Amino acid sequence: MKSAMDGLIVLDLSQVYQGPYCGMLMAYQGAKVIKMEALTGEVIRQRIEDKNPHEFLMFNSNKLGISLNLKSSEGAEILKSLVQQADVLIENFTPGVMDRLGVGYNTLKEINPRLIYGSATGFGLNGPYSDFPGMDLTVQAISGVMASTGYEGKPPVKAGPAVCDILGGIHLYGGIATALYEREKSGVGQHVEVSMHDATYPALASPLAGYYEGEGKRPERTGNRHSGLRMAPYNVYQTKDGYVAIICVTEKHWEQLTRLMERTDLIGAPGYENTVNRALNMDVVDQIIEDWTKDKSKWDLMKQLKEARVPSSPVLSIAEVEDDEHLKARGMIQYVDHPIRGRSKVPGSPIRLSRTEQQKVTPAPLVGEHTEQVLQDMLHYSPGELERLREEGII
Amino acid sequence: MKSAMDGLIVLDLSQVYQGPYCGMLMAYQGAKVIKMEALTGEVIRQRIEDKNPHEFLMFNSNKLGISLNLKSSEGAEILKSLVQQADVLIENFTPGVMDRLGVGYNTLKEINPRLIYGSATGFGLNGPYSDFPGMDLTVQAISGVMASTGYEGKPPVKAGPAVCDILGGIHLYGGIATALYEREKSGVGQHVEVSMHDATYPALASPLAGYYEGEGKRPERTGNRHSGLRMAPYNVYQTKDGYVAIICVTEKHWEQLTRLMERTDLIGAPGYENTVNRALNMDVVDQIIEDWTKDKSKWDLMKQLKEARVPSSPVLSIAEVEDDEHLKARGMIQYVDHPIRGRSKVPGSPIRLSRTEQQKVTPAPLVGEHTEQVLQDMLHYSPGELERLREEGII
Repeated sequence: MKSAMDGLIVLDLSQVYQGPYCGMLMAYQGAKVIKMEALTGEVIRQRIEDKNPHEFLMFNSNKLGISLNLKSSEGAEILKSLVQQADVLIENFTPGVMDRLGVGYNTLKEINPRLIYGSATGFGLNGPYSDFPGMDLTVQAISGVMASTGYEGKPPVKAGPAVCDILGGIHLYGGIATALYEREKSGVGQHVEVSMHDATYPALASPLAGYYEGEGKRPERTGNRHSGLRMAPYNVYQTKDGYVAIICVTEKHWEQLTRLMERTDLIGAPGYENTVNRALNMDVVDQIIEDWTKDKSKWDLMKQLKEARVPSSPVLSIAEVEDDEHLKARGMIQYVDHPIRGRSKVPGSPIRLSRTEQQKVTPAPLVGEHTEQVLQDMLHYSPGELERLREEGII
Repeated sequence: MKSAMDGLIVLDLSQVYQGPYCGMLMAYQGAKVIKMEALTGEVIRQRIEDKNPHEFLMFNSNKLGISLNLKSSEGAEILKSLVQQADVLIENFTPGVMDRLGVGYNTLKEINPRLIYGSATGFGLNGPYSDFPGMDLTVQAISGVMASTGYEGKPPVKAGPAVCDILGGIHLYGGIATALYEREKSGVGQHVEVSMHDATYPALASPLAGYYEGEGKRPERTGNRHSGLRMAPYNVYQTKDGYVAIICVTEKHWEQLTRLMERTDLIGAPGYENTVNRALNMDVVDQIIEDWTKDKSKWDLMKQLKEARVPSSPVLSIAEVEDDEHLKARGMIQYVDHPIRGRSKVPGSPIRLSRTEQQKVTPAPLVGEHTEQVLQDMLHYSPGELERLREEGII
């Protein structure tokens, strides 16, 4: 059985999360992904002394790793030679860096008109913020993620996960896959550009809708409550061993919940007739529910609520998530044996295709682990030439 | 100039955010996307009486809208006839619903082996949580988004944006585009499956890395501070008109910041020598910075910090985001004139391709707005047959 991206060659020059996640998903679909790093390794490796922090392992599975000094003219020439054979290049340098290195899109498309060149940025290649520093924290700040997270009257809060990085990376994947499809028709590549800031904006739909419908008069952050404060129950409730999230989208959900709570007296009672009235009365509604949840366990509550067909979920801790049985059964938690870090958990691919094969997960490369192999196989460098390149600090 | 997905026909049966976002991005790339709804309209329309809430407009631009009663056998037959001509079908019903309607993947692939059938779910088609209710709130609860958001010793907090919905939708887009590319080689479609829960897990990389490296002993949520509490400065600071996010990734950033604050005495001082030591001392470091930021404006601070090359960003309010000049310049904020809601702001596409054309944005359809047009054009129904279908409650 073949993989969907079998035969594709991807040069992945990207760093940290956003670009590397995109490259890894392509590797999982069968592309040959060559991660190209500076001789000292990419930025995220510098977080720990052995250069293989867990964050690096999580986004670089199934890649070949080569190290190359792009600031040397011979290094840039080696990149250009690889580009002749490549289908895709991914980079997330600050806008302008690739051009200054002499390997920007306009140069590389002359070398290989079929090249699909993917640029992941913080704020894009144009527009008033295009030179703003694009990191997950700064994009969360400027995009409204922080404004809409936390509680009314308290400071804005960042979302714990790196949502802007991953939204950026997966939109880039989508753009590159689209360009690959289109290239089958036209025979020509193109420049795919995705910014983290753009990629985050659609996720703001609920806070934006709350803003529009409240004519700007509603609080911009509502804790664990509905963004528009227009639904109740919709919250996270204390239990004896943590928290449980409960939402009643339909009246049926609410009726079923009142049955479980043995509070059927509330069905149709004044202030409880529908979600709009309950929302006006949400402090009381939430208190009634928490009085019921607080001495029960979160998984018992979930089980009861599920049987009664009321949407709910336990709030899992990071310790529970990192060992989640469902994520393991789904193959989202994968194990690799890394030569330095040992047995480590890394993410699988959320993209499942029924007919084409997904690659077995292999560990992220060490710095320059496959430099010689790749330069010999693809560019036919001799051992002597490789030795010279190494002595001259080019590889 | 052609669009990347010109000529593709997409049947979009999906609802709320996750599937509709995927369909809209395909429409922006030139696919003919036919949104199929129940006669009363999809779930999210029910939020307001006129059936055109802003959330609906935001994720259904550029689609044709048809209404069809899939529970009637003739309705299901009409879907099957459309499938014969379609390239892609998108659905996000509860697992099993499409099979019960007689239009599951195994049936439809017999009708059209080239069909790419995209299923967006909460928790996937298999695994112990596969029958759990999958809404943005419940997926945030179980996936660790909540556990990692908020402050140590305080309750978990949901991220304000619908991050799980949008992560699910864009991974589905990536999977469908991959299958379209592969179909050009094999001539055959396949079933693409993406769950919101799977799609959220990679974004947990920082909290997971913090957990692994702290051997589970660090707090699982750290407010606006670094997930692993291993970097300082890294926080959001009060200003006279809101907040500003500041991070020092390198020592150079820190030195530049001390210059701006006129506190160069801190460079190399005990407890401030490097990010690890500053992190151990982060309450003091943060206080020094906030004493400097609190009487300045957030944009003035950003400007100074940017000139000094220290990564920072103002925290924008939702009111500022919804009118953001950069998002407008980038085309991420688009205007449509909707027949009921009037002039409205909707998202553009974060996926930019340099050579193929992106469609001009047009407003989301009303319920059944294009039913007759589509059934006439694609299936050649006569006016009399359409009248009968309408009378019988099939369209």
